[in-house]
Amino acid sequence: MPYQLHYWPTIQGRGEFVRLALEAAGADYVDVARLPEAEGGGESALGERLGDLNSARPAFAPPFLVDGDIVVGQTAAILLYLGPRLGLSGVGESDGLWTHQLQLTIADAVAEAHDTHHPISVGAYYEDQRDAAVLRARAFRDERIPKFLDWFERVLQCNPAGSLHLVGDTLTYADLSLFQLVDGLRYAFPKATARALAATPAVEKLHVNVRRRQSVQAYLQSPRRIAFNEDGIFRRYAELDG
Amino acid sequence: MPYQLHYWPTIQGRGEFVRLALEAAGADYVDVARLPEAEGGGESALGERLGDLNSARPAFAPPFLVDGDIVVGQTAAILLYLGPRLGLSGVGESDGLWTHQLQLTIADAVAEAHDTHHPISVGAYYEDQRDAAVLRARAFRDERIPKFLDWFERVLQCNPAGSLHLVGDTLTYADLSLFQLVDGLRYAFPKATARALAATPAVEKLHVNVRRRQSVQAYLQSPRRIAFNEDGIFRRYAELDG
Repeated sequence: MPYQLHYWPTIQGRGEFVRLALEAAGADYVDVARLPEAEGGGESALGERLGDLNSARPAFAPPFLVDGDIVVGQTAAILLYLGPRLGLSGVGESDGLWTHQLQLTIADAVAEAHDTHHPISVGAYYEDQRDAAVLRARAFRDERIPKFLDWFERVLQCNPAGSLHLVGDTLTYADLSLFQLVDGLRYAFPKATARALAATPAVEKLHVNVRRRQSVQAYLQSPRRIAFNEDGIFRRYAELDG
Repeated sequence: MPYQLHYWPTIQGRGEFVRLALEAAGADYVDVARLPEAEGGGESALGERLGDLNSARPAFAPPFLVDGDIVVGQTAAILLYLGPRLGLSGVGESDGLWTHQLQLTIADAVAEAHDTHHPISVGAYYEDQRDAAVLRARAFRDERIPKFLDWFERVLQCNPAGSLHLVGDTLTYADLSLFQLVDGLRYAFPKATARALAATPAVEKLHVNVRRRQSVQAYLQSPRRIAFNEDGIFRRYAELDG
């Protein structure tokens, strides 16, 4: 049985961290909401599944993953589940925990990136909170992007197995997620991210190396990779970069 | 060897979720930064440990937990590690994953509660972002508190083992963390939280029940429980409630 990923069909969003892990590992999966409506795809079917009152363990929000009887929501929990099954969480409990800790820190950065364009309310339009967005984005660019990327640089530089991976000397979902974070930051804040990456060469190299991996490159060049857009988490608004 | 918890010594903050798990389980632990400075306590010693360049696996921020050779940061990852050791994550992989998924959703709510008083920048004073805070807090009160508590109510009502616990019929760290979330919301937004709790009786009952547990009650009445204050995550500013 292929894994079933349930996520919004028109954005990368948080689901992309799961897609990347599945794709990098060559796993058999179905991106359910991207199927034709006749086959169970579409946003409304996704919304119905999310609100299914017969589910004893409902997800708060997409993404969620179905694997036989297991249903798991929350991006980081999905990756915690998939990690050992896809060979993407290092060796043993200690590596698995460290990989997860890195993922949670990436998730914090992603949430902050989201809030640059929605600093007041997720339920309101960007245009109605633009003034606050400009202020929040400035703080994010000046303080938070460097703080996060500097920390990942330190993690890479301190890795006893070398600076090519975050955990040991093999690919983990943390590497894939850091690639995605950097990719998103480069899209949303090209100037600020270029400045930060100039000071974090190992992070920049990881981004290049992950992109070059055969399975990742094939995915990124396929129609399965949705382009960044202004409905997702990483949005390019000129007034928020600088 | 007792567990070593490293967290800011004057606030509940994110460290409180770990303190509650350790206390509820009667675990042997040291809250290191609360020791006298001569014994390694204090904020500056905590800062030094955080910046320790000899650490191959540094934490991004407090809290972090030391257990022999294991050092783990990120609140949810600490609880993932402690859960099975303290008997606080249900039975088997499925319960453990569900407990963690619940914790991650609580963490999302906690981050949003934090941002009500810091919607623009974590590095700036509240007073300098109060106008945005008033707007963000209104959206949080009107949309997000009900959305989160309604979802936890649904989880409790859908639990096949009964509505007294989030996972099965025993205490997990998710129960303790939901107690703490509700406790914090009641402190910071007393009016809005009372309204939301009136519609979520199982959540309110869980809050009462957790508080009444012998080990939790003993902890809450001890000097080890730091009072809520306006340096923590949950802050009472009259202009943010309503």
